[in-house]
Amino acid sequence: MPGKKKHFKSPKQKAFTSPGSLFYVGNEVTGPTNIKLIEYNKDSIEQKNIKTISELRQSPNDQKVFWLDVDGVHEPAVIEQVGKKFGLHPLMLEDILNTTQKPKIEFFEDENQIFVVVKAIKLDTVKWEADIEQASFVLGKDFLISFQEKDSLNVFDQIQERLYRENSRTRKNKADYLLYALLDLVVDNYYVILDQLGEKLEDLEDCVMNDPQTKYQQDLYRLKREMSVIRKCIAPLRDIISALIREESTIMDRTTNVFLRDVQDHVIQTIETLDSYREIAENIMSSYHALLSNRMNSVMKTLTVFTVIFMPLTFIAGIYGMNFDNMPELRWPNGYFYTLGFMVVLTIFLWFYFKWKKYI
Amino acid sequence: MPGKKKHFKSPKQKAFTSPGSLFYVGNEVTGPTNIKLIEYNKDSIEQKNIKTISELRQSPNDQKVFWLDVDGVHEPAVIEQVGKKFGLHPLMLEDILNTTQKPKIEFFEDENQIFVVVKAIKLDTVKWEADIEQASFVLGKDFLISFQEKDSLNVFDQIQERLYRENSRTRKNKADYLLYALLDLVVDNYYVILDQLGEKLEDLEDCVMNDPQTKYQQDLYRLKREMSVIRKCIAPLRDIISALIREESTIMDRTTNVFLRDVQDHVIQTIETLDSYREIAENIMSSYHALLSNRMNSVMKTLTVFTVIFMPLTFIAGIYGMNFDNMPELRWPNGYFYTLGFMVVLTIFLWFYFKWKKYI
Amino acid sequence: MPGKKKHFKSPKQKAFTSPGSLFYVGNEVTGPTNIKLIEYNKDSIEQKNIKTISELRQSPNDQKVFWLDVDGVHEPAVIEQVGKKFGLHPLMLEDILNTTQKPKIEFFEDENQIFVVVKAIKLDTVKWEADIEQASFVLGKDFLISFQEKDSLNVFDQIQERLYRENSRTRKNKADYLLYALLDLVVDNYYVILDQLGEKLEDLEDCVMNDPQTKYQQDLYRLKREMSVIRKCIAPLRDIISALIREESTIMDRTTNVFLRDVQDHVIQTIETLDSYREIAENIMSSYHALLSNRMNSVMKTLTVFTVIFMPLTFIAGIYGMNFDNMPELRWPNGYFYTLGFMVVLTIFLWFYFKWKKYI
Amino acid sequence: MPGKKKHFKSPKQKAFTSPGSLFYVGNEVTGPTNIKLIEYNKDSIEQKNIKTISELRQSPNDQKVFWLDVDGVHEPAVIEQVGKKFGLHPLMLEDILNTTQKPKIEFFEDENQIFVVVKAIKLDTVKWEADIEQASFVLGKDFLISFQEKDSLNVFDQIQERLYRENSRTRKNKADYLLYALLDLVVDNYYVILDQLGEKLEDLEDCVMNDPQTKYQQDLYRLKREMSVIRKCIAPLRDIISALIREESTIMDRTTNVFLRDVQDHVIQTIETLDSYREIAENIMSSYHALLSNRMNSVMKTLTVFTVIFMPLTFIAGIYGMNFDNMPELRWPNGYFYTLGFMVVLTIFLWFYFKWKKYI
Amino acid sequence: MPGKKKHFKSPKQKAFTSPGSLFYVGNEVTGPTNIKLIEYNKDSIEQKNIKTISELRQSPNDQKVFWLDVDGVHEPAVIEQVGKKFGLHPLMLEDILNTTQKPKIEFFEDENQIFVVVKAIKLDTVKWEADIEQASFVLGKDFLISFQEKDSLNVFDQIQERLYRENSRTRKNKADYLLYALLDLVVDNYYVILDQLGEKLEDLEDCVMNDPQTKYQQDLYRLKREMSVIRKCIAPLRDIISALIREESTIMDRTTNVFLRDVQDHVIQTIETLDSYREIAENIMSSYHALLSNRMNSVMKTLTVFTVIFMPLTFIAGIYGMNFDNMPELRWPNGYFYTLGFMVVLTIFLWFYFKWKKYI
Repeated sequence: MPGKKKHFKSPKQKAFTSPGSLFYVGNEVTGPTNIKLIEYNKDSIEQKNIKTISELRQSPNDQKVFWLDVDGVHEPAVIEQVGKKFGLHPLMLEDILNTTQKPKIEFFEDENQIFVVVKAIKLDTVKWEADIEQASFVLGKDFLISFQEKDSLNVFDQIQERLYRENSRTRKNKADYLLYALLDLVVDNYYVILDQLGEKLEDLEDCVMNDPQTKYQQDLYRLKREMSVIRKCIAPLRDIISALIREESTIMDRTTNVFLRDVQDHVIQTIETLDSYREIAENIMSSYHALLSNRMNSVMKTLTVFTVIFMPLTFIAGIYGMNFDNMPELRWPNGYFYTLGFMVVLTIFLWFYFKWKKYI
Repeated sequence: MPGKKKHFKSPKQKAFTSPGSLFYVGNEVTGPTNIKLIEYNKDSIEQKNIKTISELRQSPNDQKVFWLDVDGVHEPAVIEQVGKKFGLHPLMLEDILNTTQKPKIEFFEDENQIFVVVKAIKLDTVKWEADIEQASFVLGKDFLISFQEKDSLNVFDQIQERLYRENSRTRKNKADYLLYALLDLVVDNYYVILDQLGEKLEDLEDCVMNDPQTKYQQDLYRLKREMSVIRKCIAPLRDIISALIREESTIMDRTTNVFLRDVQDHVIQTIETLDSYREIAENIMSSYHALLSNRMNSVMKTLTVFTVIFMPLTFIAGIYGMNFDNMPELRWPNGYFYTLGFMVVLTIFLWFYFKWKKYI
Repeated sequence: MPGKKKHFKSPKQKAFTSPGSLFYVGNEVTGPTNIKLIEYNKDSIEQKNIKTISELRQSPNDQKVFWLDVDGVHEPAVIEQVGKKFGLHPLMLEDILNTTQKPKIEFFEDENQIFVVVKAIKLDTVKWEADIEQASFVLGKDFLISFQEKDSLNVFDQIQERLYRENSRTRKNKADYLLYALLDLVVDNYYVILDQLGEKLEDLEDCVMNDPQTKYQQDLYRLKREMSVIRKCIAPLRDIISALIREESTIMDRTTNVFLRDVQDHVIQTIETLDSYREIAENIMSSYHALLSNRMNSVMKTLTVFTVIFMPLTFIAGIYGMNFDNMPELRWPNGYFYTLGFMVVLTIFLWFYFKWKKYI
Repeated sequence: MPGKKKHFKSPKQKAFTSPGSLFYVGNEVTGPTNIKLIEYNKDSIEQKNIKTISELRQSPNDQKVFWLDVDGVHEPAVIEQVGKKFGLHPLMLEDILNTTQKPKIEFFEDENQIFVVVKAIKLDTVKWEADIEQASFVLGKDFLISFQEKDSLNVFDQIQERLYRENSRTRKNKADYLLYALLDLVVDNYYVILDQLGEKLEDLEDCVMNDPQTKYQQDLYRLKREMSVIRKCIAPLRDIISALIREESTIMDRTTNVFLRDVQDHVIQTIETLDSYREIAENIMSSYHALLSNRMNSVMKTLTVFTVIFMPLTFIAGIYGMNFDNMPELRWPNGYFYTLGFMVVLTIFLWFYFKWKKYI
Repeated sequence: MPGKKKHFKSPKQKAFTSPGSLFYVGNEVTGPTNIKLIEYNKDSIEQKNIKTISELRQSPNDQKVFWLDVDGVHEPAVIEQVGKKFGLHPLMLEDILNTTQKPKIEFFEDENQIFVVVKAIKLDTVKWEADIEQASFVLGKDFLISFQEKDSLNVFDQIQERLYRENSRTRKNKADYLLYALLDLVVDNYYVILDQLGEKLEDLEDCVMNDPQTKYQQDLYRLKREMSVIRKCIAPLRDIISALIREESTIMDRTTNVFLRDVQDHVIQTIETLDSYREIAENIMSSYHALLSNRMNSVMKTLTVFTVIFMPLTFIAGIYGMNFDNMPELRWPNGYFYTLGFMVVLTIFLWFYFKWKKYI
């Protein structure tokens, strides 16, 4: 169960290697790396699958937007080739290969490249575990290289569809708009998770309110943990997009800013919703404890009322069960009935006493 | 019960559409969109109802303030027409249609327009649920367009009344003062909600202090949740108005600033009052728990005192209920009375012992 | 009981009036408004009572400091007359009349006036409720106008006495020093309240430590609430005085800054003391709960020890109270005494067992 | 017990006096004020005791560092004389006389003087109460005046010793280095207190872990309170020294900065250690509560196990103690032994049942 | 057990010495100080062991990188000699000798040296105690001096290996890159500790969930304490590296910044992981308490159910154990069986009553 232990995983397992050494860090993956190339401008679009980097003849140029999509980051050799072809910094390659890297943005001014790492999240709604996948983007003048961990998340297919639609805004703009469109899709994905979490929380709230059981507490505990993991994946995006908006270089076009501000808004809303979910989870938890403690109180009251009523009765019965030779009451013809009568009166008295003390 | 689940609702339900696509996001609404146009200056005022945007001949000009009030945002087509007529940015239209948008301000510098989204709130004092409605404003040079979700909140009627009063300050000023007046009304509305919440809290406090019952806890829980929802609607206004005050453009007149600072003051007071209400709610909750725990303690003491007094008595009775052949005390003529006497003495002793130990 | 409900009171009760409309907001007050005028400089001082503003001939000039003290803000007409005479902004008048206004400073640059709102506090040491009164100051070039809610707080009398002393520092300085002197008196007043709160806290601590009773908890709860109300009145003064110190205009003299920094110091000390009082109150509360829980534990231990000792004894007595025909022990001549002996041994054993388990 | 009530003491007891009036605020002190003068430079050093300020002929000059040490601040007249002689600001004198003043730094630019107030702390390790004493320093061009509350803390003696050592760094430097040396001694003193607190905490932790008793809780409560008092004395030093480092004037020499940064480091370490002590105290407290609650649980389990085992047994004994004429079992020859046997079996069963349920 | 009491140790034990006096502060260490010298550039590398500083002929020059590694800081005399040889500031030497110094960076501008103190941490996985060792670095133009507390941590050996590899990046760069490489190794080490802590936490979580026992609570308490100690060692590194990145001097090369940003990233990730571990520890703790409280509840329910069922039964048996002469039921032929039957019915009724009340 690798998913279960995810948040205990040390974030970097290749300690003690010299900086810039390329190792894959992440879950084991088999199968080849898929590389796709799309070149487009307002007038035309062309797509092809690449087997090896060496067969890649084209270079980015200012005629077309050049988008290279690398699907799979478990083969350091392939990543290194891409790195050499496009002049990527060794530390950048190290981060691409390290799938435990937290989301970040890095500006490589010498290379005139912007490097962005984000997390795509899917939620396993049976075990309620987040399935986190890393996506890295290198934005350069006229080109974008995207690295995905697996191809199980098809967020990129939609972009391709949009690109094939002529006159689409994506088609008419440059590589920076393409980066925006990809980030927007990643963020849109977060809304799906929020929906799932929201529904689960609502279910749990109803369950807890009706019948506070221990297992819901475990569910809440697990849900809170996953929400905390998810939050850590989403929160850094805020600063990443702010940095993109502030960036003034030849790579980023000023007209993309209004769109980035829109994604920014969505990210902030996502984080705020997660925070309010967390607050709701806390509230359900404390409601659960309050209900449990109320039930405990009612149990204790029952115990007390029964004990306090029956103890004196049993004591009286005990008295007249004694075997003294000289116990006058025992000889009274109606002694037994008088005693029963007294017991009834005592019980009624105690009952009303407890009613008055609000124990019952 | 759509209201009940409001805060679990995912804030954006149209994920995975390309940016700028226009969809209505919100509760289902039927009925047509009502559009009203008011043009006024110091000397004259004119009002008419608009059926379709195409019949709108007038354009904003610097002779008169041009106020278009769009009542209903559930018809994307209508909003799009308005957008085309006044050159509104597609992302702005997207936000107007999305009633789950959080309050925000956006400056569209190219279009020389300021876009403001706020929330008008009504409180259902039976179910204690906030009924939140979105209002958007587009302020341009010499014109203001306001978009309301429903017409159930009549905050705008008062402005119209004021406009018909000659020499009123609203009438003498420009569109930016009109925006201020509308924001002021929205904020004034918040005070009504604060009053209702304050009274409810006071009631709950009295109830809890007199007789701590489980149901008050549920009420407090619900109240806290709604207060948290309301706070999220109000809090962003602080930054929105700050931004308006700082804005230096041809749209905002410097003389409006002193009025905006006044609204700003009211917003801050609203937020602080809400925060102190939340604190009071927390205090009532903890008083409730303390009272409950005190009651529990008194129940436990009752149990203990009764048990500890009657256990020895019952034991003594049990002793003399044994059937041994040779039990000398049973043969004593006054054995029974000695035993009863001893029991009375023991009870008195234990009673004072507990008094001394402060159990009673 | 208006005092009791103070912190639930909505801060602004005149919602939905157009901005600048003058309404009195506060507790009902009767009686006329008292207006006093003092004009002074190093050489001379003159004082007179004013019936109506219209009879006020003098105007502020740079020969003398002109101090107008308005005692009572419940008559909007009077305040409006003062406003017209001295050219005060309508929003300023609105704030003067609104006694629920929070402390603030506002710079009216066009009018070259500084407007300050502060709170004078008295503490009802029987009900432990804060009695809060608003004081507003308008500082202009060569004049100061002070508005007090009631004349029950005589903080201003002292200033008058000081003014009549020749060579007093107040007399030798300008209107800005007079404002400082008034603020200093208001802040000095806070120390009296701190003293009262401190003594009450000390009393409560002693009481709780000696005998934790439910009523002390209620007292602490109330005290915490009042301290929170008081803190909200004092805290904004920090920023108000900072703003006065930073202000560079013709109204504020640079030499007054060193005195303002002194008041600033006192305000900060007041807030810190209040915060430490709140911390102490929290500590007393948690000590109370700890003591209660300790007592509960000792009650439970008593219950357990008694139950566990007497249950076996009663059971043994029950055994020999059975009526079987064939129970050999019952026929033993010393069976009864053996049984009693065994009971004593068992009791001693259990007693030491509990001693060892630290239950006793 | 003035020490005990220290943190409830109102910080300023001379409210309602005009600013600059000189009153002593603090514990009652008798005895005269001791004044010592030390003049030194690299080559020579001279010391004398001063009876009255009037006999002081020398004035600070740039030949020698002029250090006046005033021991006792309970005589306003003496402080006033010193103030006149050296041209100290009235508000500065007011602060020197007020021993409840919190630590602060004030730059008197007109007088070209720096005024620093710090607290020297001793810890009474019997009652665990902090004994706080105020020290004020006035640093001018070529002179330093130090004011101590009592002479019981001999921190200054060491400096004098160092001054008499020729070639000592203190001797070679100016008055600002002397101020640094005094501050360093005050801060060094804090380490002694930290040591004492650390040891006490360790003792308490051991005691609580071995045997959680109520009195340790009281000790922890008191310790936390004193640590909070001490922290308030130390924390402002951080900003005071920062301000000294940033200050660029003729009084402070740039070469002293590296030493001041060293003290700064120590102050920060002191505060952080205090904070970690507070955290440790919190942890011990919560461990105490956890241990107590564990013990309670074990008490409750004992109660439950005994009750649940003996209740059925006693009931069975009760059954056969009934006096019905027709109870066949009573007539069985081995009825008694069968019953005893059944009781044993039932007990064993219940015992293992509880073992399985982990109650025992 | 010096390790156990580590966090109670006063951070500076040499109070009251004049600043710049050299004393060793730390655990007692015996054995000589090992000093190694490595000189290298792109073309050649040379290493030798130094007995005494006096035999050190070479001086740093811009031909080669000069790295002096001092292994052991317990001999003030040796450190002083190194200080004299390289012109280190006395306060710097004081910090090198004080192993309780917190991590810091200090820029000695006059000497053109950068001084960095960091902590290397090993974790004793039996007692779960952090073994903290101090490493100090002095970076000057063309030279680096490193001071290690013990040689038990071999982090530096790897660097030496890398240096002997020709063409390694370390070899080709200057002293600032060497400092980076050493810091990187220290930080890499932290990941090992994170791994160990993460596994321990996972174990504890499993244990607590399966069987909440008191000892796990003690383990968690200890773990939290060590994590807090570790965090204090790591957290300052963030600011240290930021300061290195911002530093613009001849010592730091701009090209090293991209590598420093990489370490910075790792440090931040380490701190965030530690923080999430702390959060997890808190969650386990609260799960533990919740499980315990659930178990307590079930114990109380058992007690209540048994008591409430057997009390009435025993009472009935008591009734018919009374010895009244006239008790008609006792004479009924089937009285005994009727009574038994009634008892069975009562038991069944109570059982279902509790089922319905959800006590069972």
